[in-house]
Amino acid sequence: MDYKKLDKTTLIEYLSNIAKIKSYFGSDDLIAQEIGDGNLNYVYKISSVQNPQKALIVKQAVPYLRCVGEEFPLGRERMTYEIRALQKFYNILPSFIPNLYHTSEDMSLVVMEYLGNHVIMRKGLMDGVKYKNFSEHISTYMSAMLFYTSSLYLCSSEKRVIIAQFNSNMELCKLTEDLVFSFAFMEHETNDNANVKNNPEAQKLFADMEFKEKVLELKYRFMTQGDALLHGDLHTGSIMINENETYVIDPEFAFVGPFGFDIGALLANLVNNYIYHVVVTKDEDFQNWLLVTIKEVMEKFRDKFLNFWSEHKESALLVEGYLDNETLVRYKEKFVKNIIKESIGFAGCKMARRVYGVAGVEEIRGIEDKNLRAEAEKMALKIAREFVINYEKINSVDEILEIVKNAG
Amino acid sequence: MDYKKLDKTTLIEYLSNIAKIKSYFGSDDLIAQEIGDGNLNYVYKISSVQNPQKALIVKQAVPYLRCVGEEFPLGRERMTYEIRALQKFYNILPSFIPNLYHTSEDMSLVVMEYLGNHVIMRKGLMDGVKYKNFSEHISTYMSAMLFYTSSLYLCSSEKRVIIAQFNSNMELCKLTEDLVFSFAFMEHETNDNANVKNNPEAQKLFADMEFKEKVLELKYRFMTQGDALLHGDLHTGSIMINENETYVIDPEFAFVGPFGFDIGALLANLVNNYIYHVVVTKDEDFQNWLLVTIKEVMEKFRDKFLNFWSEHKESALLVEGYLDNETLVRYKEKFVKNIIKESIGFAGCKMARRVYGVAGVEEIRGIEDKNLRAEAEKMALKIAREFVINYEKINSVDEILEIVKNAG
Repeated sequence: MDYKKLDKTTLIEYLSNIAKIKSYFGSDDLIAQEIGDGNLNYVYKISSVQNPQKALIVKQAVPYLRCVGEEFPLGRERMTYEIRALQKFYNILPSFIPNLYHTSEDMSLVVMEYLGNHVIMRKGLMDGVKYKNFSEHISTYMSAMLFYTSSLYLCSSEKRVIIAQFNSNMELCKLTEDLVFSFAFMEHETNDNANVKNNPEAQKLFADMEFKEKVLELKYRFMTQGDALLHGDLHTGSIMINENETYVIDPEFAFVGPFGFDIGALLANLVNNYIYHVVVTKDEDFQNWLLVTIKEVMEKFRDKFLNFWSEHKESALLVEGYLDNETLVRYKEKFVKNIIKESIGFAGCKMARRVYGVAGVEEIRGIEDKNLRAEAEKMALKIAREFVINYEKINSVDEILEIVKNAG
Repeated sequence: MDYKKLDKTTLIEYLSNIAKIKSYFGSDDLIAQEIGDGNLNYVYKISSVQNPQKALIVKQAVPYLRCVGEEFPLGRERMTYEIRALQKFYNILPSFIPNLYHTSEDMSLVVMEYLGNHVIMRKGLMDGVKYKNFSEHISTYMSAMLFYTSSLYLCSSEKRVIIAQFNSNMELCKLTEDLVFSFAFMEHETNDNANVKNNPEAQKLFADMEFKEKVLELKYRFMTQGDALLHGDLHTGSIMINENETYVIDPEFAFVGPFGFDIGALLANLVNNYIYHVVVTKDEDFQNWLLVTIKEVMEKFRDKFLNFWSEHKESALLVEGYLDNETLVRYKEKFVKNIIKESIGFAGCKMARRVYGVAGVEEIRGIEDKNLRAEAEKMALKIAREFVINYEKINSVDEILEIVKNAG
């Protein structure tokens, strides 16, 4: 079927022709409601009139940036990569991905499970909700997705198939290249923090060549290092969560990139939330929970990644019997240590870019009191700088925590 | 046209339908002669009967490894990548690539300029011929091909187009992964040096875990680091040369890989030739010429690569104005220094794998005297080991030369 942007009426007509959706709703009447404040896409909740608990989510991409309008074209093919990534991740580990009811690359549309009992994690964290299973869940998610789409598990040709499926996700990769690694650290029209021009802190950052040189090294890694299939935008706004369950959504930035990028994105967002609680709520108990969570996420990721690896002896990289066991263990530990280091570097870039670049995070850009916001920005930049300058020298997760704690 | 393996008769019939070839030969009668000792493909020389100086080369791939036979299948699609690479490289810098008269991905066939006044460089070097323009030519070739197919020049989407064009060259990439980085350093049926089983030197290499761990790091780079479009097999057997001209042929292993791999392959082959002249001909004058050539190749590569870079301010990596000039110069110098280091590591892998693995080089495997061959092998392994273990710490081209000279 040719692409057509659907509205609330045509959407229900479209869905009525899909067997799996008919079977889900039975003979119920359906109602569509536009939800979400998506920057990029249209999101609808489709519910049964007779039984409102029965609901699905429909997400459709339009060939422009929704929050700006048709004058900012952005290929709707981004949904193609989101669909492929959702399917790929679901096949690896279904428990952290919403059930898919229907996908259409032609229509740039996906129909999936409605997560009615979950909130966007960023909001939950800002409200001070402790998710006791989160570190367990997200470390499983990240270690499985990264390991099982890497050359440490796949054979050479399987890896190339994944590269081919995601290689053309170029518009969204370029958004990251530009916005995360370049424009946020120089005078640029996209920087939408109104203070930048006359802000001495911003000018100091823009002139910090030691920092920016390291950012450039990390940008080069982002562009050329094809370790594994990434989510590509793994912040706490891409996580739907409650006490018991964790879902990762919105992988439209998916591509084959460096191991540390997703982990770094998550780390950056947890630290940003920590800063919010230091500066705004001053809730020390929650700050401590966040620090413990960061430690658990990183250490559990490392352990689980190594566990998956120990279960698979042959891959594109490894031929059984090539190394003796002692050397193999040492090699793998060094390998995973380097992933952690790299993720600290990426976390630093991600944190710093949120301060003055386009699309700040709610925890910092959203602080209404000007002085408090400046305090939070300063703290974010201090941590980000240490992460970026020193990521190769940081040898333990405790050192990460020290940097975060000492910045307050 | 559907694929069909051509013979001397059907080939002439096939060529008679191609306008550009008809125009080259005019109304002359044509004769086909099978030439070359290709491991992989069939190569024919097509000449004019009336004017034998007029000639072209036809290369056709068959869906198996020619030197073994149909029982060793190998996709003829390798010619697709050779054609694409020849065209791509020709478009960047035509002077080092044979003129193409006709290509057909369907027929896995290419028709190109006959290089009648050139010899395979390996043979020329073994005969002690000094090619005074070689370092100038090959440094231009390598710096241009690597720079202009990298994210230092291309924009993000252009780079992805090249990745897409070569990503599926998986069979040949896998040959390199297996043969260069794994099988040659362990007990494996492909190792065709008859001595391996009872050779204490081979057993020592196979048990050298420090060396093999570093090889594994380099293998991982080879598999995942997408810097630029590589020739993929840049040894002195892929170079046709005379006093005035240098041509690079046979890029069927082309793929987007690490900057240092082609440079490393060339370095390895020049050092192997040096070893031959130390052990067999004992021609000190030629040894010195080789050392000077190595130095010139590496230093000219570095300078020319930096020159190309200085001519282009914007790319996928760089946004103009992001770094101040001093930092940019430092960043670029460090970047190119890391390319040189990496190439030393790859050179070590390439040298070491030729000692016991399949497809040795003529300079070492071809030495008939058993003791001299053992001496050459030992010298090759000594240099290779130092290259592989220390490549990250080698800071100048002179240090490379010291390692080579001290191994004799």
